[in-house]
Amino acid sequence: MERRIDLNADLGEGFGPWRLTEDEGLMPLLSSANVAAGGHASDPATMRATVRLAQRHGVRIGAHPGFPDKVGFGRRRLPFTMDEVTETVAAQTGALVAVAALEGARVEYVKAHGALGNWAAEDEEVARAVLRGARAALGTGAVLMAIAGTAQERVAAAEGAPHVAEVFLDRGYAASGLLAPRGTPGALLTDAEEEAERMLGFLRTGQMPTVEGGTVSMAAGSICVHGDTPGAVAAARLLRERLEGAGWRVAAA
Amino acid sequence: MERRIDLNADLGEGFGPWRLTEDEGLMPLLSSANVAAGGHASDPATMRATVRLAQRHGVRIGAHPGFPDKVGFGRRRLPFTMDEVTETVAAQTGALVAVAALEGARVEYVKAHGALGNWAAEDEEVARAVLRGARAALGTGAVLMAIAGTAQERVAAAEGAPHVAEVFLDRGYAASGLLAPRGTPGALLTDAEEEAERMLGFLRTGQMPTVEGGTVSMAAGSICVHGDTPGAVAAARLLRERLEGAGWRVAAA
Amino acid sequence: MERRIDLNADLGEGFGPWRLTEDEGLMPLLSSANVAAGGHASDPATMRATVRLAQRHGVRIGAHPGFPDKVGFGRRRLPFTMDEVTETVAAQTGALVAVAALEGARVEYVKAHGALGNWAAEDEEVARAVLRGARAALGTGAVLMAIAGTAQERVAAAEGAPHVAEVFLDRGYAASGLLAPRGTPGALLTDAEEEAERMLGFLRTGQMPTVEGGTVSMAAGSICVHGDTPGAVAAARLLRERLEGAGWRVAAA
Amino acid sequence: MERRIDLNADLGEGFGPWRLTEDEGLMPLLSSANVAAGGHASDPATMRATVRLAQRHGVRIGAHPGFPDKVGFGRRRLPFTMDEVTETVAAQTGALVAVAALEGARVEYVKAHGALGNWAAEDEEVARAVLRGARAALGTGAVLMAIAGTAQERVAAAEGAPHVAEVFLDRGYAASGLLAPRGTPGALLTDAEEEAERMLGFLRTGQMPTVEGGTVSMAAGSICVHGDTPGAVAAARLLRERLEGAGWRVAAA
Repeated sequence: MERRIDLNADLGEGFGPWRLTEDEGLMPLLSSANVAAGGHASDPATMRATVRLAQRHGVRIGAHPGFPDKVGFGRRRLPFTMDEVTETVAAQTGALVAVAALEGARVEYVKAHGALGNWAAEDEEVARAVLRGARAALGTGAVLMAIAGTAQERVAAAEGAPHVAEVFLDRGYAASGLLAPRGTPGALLTDAEEEAERMLGFLRTGQMPTVEGGTVSMAAGSICVHGDTPGAVAAARLLRERLEGAGWRVAAA
Repeated sequence: MERRIDLNADLGEGFGPWRLTEDEGLMPLLSSANVAAGGHASDPATMRATVRLAQRHGVRIGAHPGFPDKVGFGRRRLPFTMDEVTETVAAQTGALVAVAALEGARVEYVKAHGALGNWAAEDEEVARAVLRGARAALGTGAVLMAIAGTAQERVAAAEGAPHVAEVFLDRGYAASGLLAPRGTPGALLTDAEEEAERMLGFLRTGQMPTVEGGTVSMAAGSICVHGDTPGAVAAARLLRERLEGAGWRVAAA
Repeated sequence: MERRIDLNADLGEGFGPWRLTEDEGLMPLLSSANVAAGGHASDPATMRATVRLAQRHGVRIGAHPGFPDKVGFGRRRLPFTMDEVTETVAAQTGALVAVAALEGARVEYVKAHGALGNWAAEDEEVARAVLRGARAALGTGAVLMAIAGTAQERVAAAEGAPHVAEVFLDRGYAASGLLAPRGTPGALLTDAEEEAERMLGFLRTGQMPTVEGGTVSMAAGSICVHGDTPGAVAAARLLRERLEGAGWRVAAA
Repeated sequence: MERRIDLNADLGEGFGPWRLTEDEGLMPLLSSANVAAGGHASDPATMRATVRLAQRHGVRIGAHPGFPDKVGFGRRRLPFTMDEVTETVAAQTGALVAVAALEGARVEYVKAHGALGNWAAEDEEVARAVLRGARAALGTGAVLMAIAGTAQERVAAAEGAPHVAEVFLDRGYAASGLLAPRGTPGALLTDAEEEAERMLGFLRTGQMPTVEGGTVSMAAGSICVHGDTPGAVAAARLLRERLEGAGWRVAAA
């Protein structure tokens, strides 16, 4: 029986002349690409180039909407109303849907970016607002990519939305099953070997090691690799090799 | 046999706290609303409010993409490549499509705004670039609203795109069938009675009076009324009354 | 002995094709104009037109920086660091200083707008950050316009910054000397006669009536009239007439 | 007798999370830094960081205003009126002046960026519009950095504006003394040795080799090195070493 796992990363996070992520190196290693949609990053030409690259490598395309705040790169939690959250998710995702269609491509899921994603992970009302925006743009069958164990996942389940839970290759977990806050010892992994081994263990057992020293039971269908850290491509390549060596097929969920 | 004519206007041309057009007054008089889509004007919340108003009055919704230049209100011809034209039309229209879906509404056509519309009226390559963007966002059956007698209309016909030709309530025509350039005597009509009478005559005969003093044979399915001039609502109301009095039904084409 | 009082209003709050305030009507009634500087509103051409209008009426020019958030009109409190507050105040004020110089005009003070002003009224650290930005743009003698009785005023005094305290023509005060929160009964005055009478009484006695029914001792050198409410011009005109009738000279402090 | 030559580069061309130029590597090699001012690139925090870096290395700071078009990076010639050119140059330069003051630094000159600079090089009216903006922001003694042999230089001379003429390290010259158009054979130099040798020869003789095979008599006080090409730092370092080896002192003019 085949075992499948999805690998996703945030890509296309440029703007005008600027680039941030190593899209050329990362894309061939992924099964899902979270494509910035003009909020925290990107513009129509950048979206299109990113879609084209994903198409070339047969990678599933998702929209990656964030707060419309390029200076802050979507990392600042803006005081939006729930309607404003819904409207910006809808507008950004809808823009990407149409740009993707220029390349004959479809947008298959939505994953909220940065501060918007973290807010939706904490607060069910925000998670619902994101889901409404996603459904407006992608239809009622819209798929959400959700941080495992958070309000995003609970809301998707409660609302009958297809969803994929993701865990992070380079982030430590607390006993609660949530991400250990940055700054906590163990919150950030930097050794690619260790990262890959941890993931293999987790996939085999469903138990994620915690920063407190124990393990926590988790379920996930996708692994998020980071695109904007030095060594990101090498870490992703090592992970993919180890996964395939252990009999996993990397494929969109 | 019923005679039908469409009335359209550019609406929703606000941004954040700002408003430009008398949307509340104009909307009930129209059959088609060209809704600004975040390029020359608007933002997701403004788009949504405009869509809601159109829905309330049973008015057909079109996307009104323009150059992404709010300071210049889309009236400056930016040096875009054809790909950039296509991409901005797709992204703006796609954003409106998704925001409209929040209200259960559909976007049924595309009309290019301001300097982008004028460029597409002059240049078939630009008209094709606009059409490609419209089709990406609305599907291959995308309807274009085109300035009568221009490259927009020729390209739509050549490409098999459904289209509606429009004439302007308050603009004078040259013997060529094109708009008389602003500044030419007669290029701008300001008397609502005269505007309505001219349109009725044109609809009856297919002959449009020209600024040179003759007439020119034209065909149109829609009349564009302006939303941002003083007296716009009164002129639109008078036109609608005269049309209905003469047995025309105002309805989307 | 002459008694002087300053009248100020927020002006120039347009953007591109949009206008918000009745600048033509209000400017002749003022002694100080708070000119939007490209953050919550305005652009270089709008700044320049506003400066020119102020010059024509001999009105003192101040910079009115706000959060760089036109969609939210600077009314949302963005999660800025203190450095970011300082930098945006400096950059916006510096831009206005240079544009004003095109008209041979000087920017003489800074008044923070909307959510930024309210934050600086509550929090001394923010007030200091605003002051640092103002001093960078206007020099160490930079004048602040401060909401009377708030952290803005305390910080200006503590830092040796020349400042003018302002009270609001159309806002109710609490026994604390602070503005009664919107929503509180009496928080918003709407009768121009009543507004003018209250101000005259306050200027004569230094006692401001409170929404609780008593009075509070306050000091102020400027009265802020609003520019974006219906009837704003009429209310400002009535106030000015009453002030002058009672022997006050309206002049920049 | 000491011979001095200025080395300048465009720096600080980031925006929010994005970086373009190798500022850390280039700054120590320069005597003048053209700092992006929020038009084609940069934001207040990025401006401040760039100013701080220049201060640390004792490098003269100039403003580098461009068309307000980040997506196009100021490389598209926007259809601005002369007033709009003046206003954007003033506003951008004024913003940088105030941000620089936060670091106790002064902005000493203006150099127009990209499409705006090229337009000012071709058209004296545009050059005058830029100069008016520079003088509004920096005072009547404003220094211009001008492309040698162009309308920028002629206008500065005619208007009595102090100016520095620049030549480009990596660009070929035509017999007219103007830059050979990109695409012409020899228009772009890529060998650092060749670039440095050509400059030394030019500085010694006042004769610049041309792409046609001859030489043209030119005068320049500054050499512009590019910051956004691979190998830019190495080429600048080699140039500086050769200049110093030949007895030139690299210093602001």
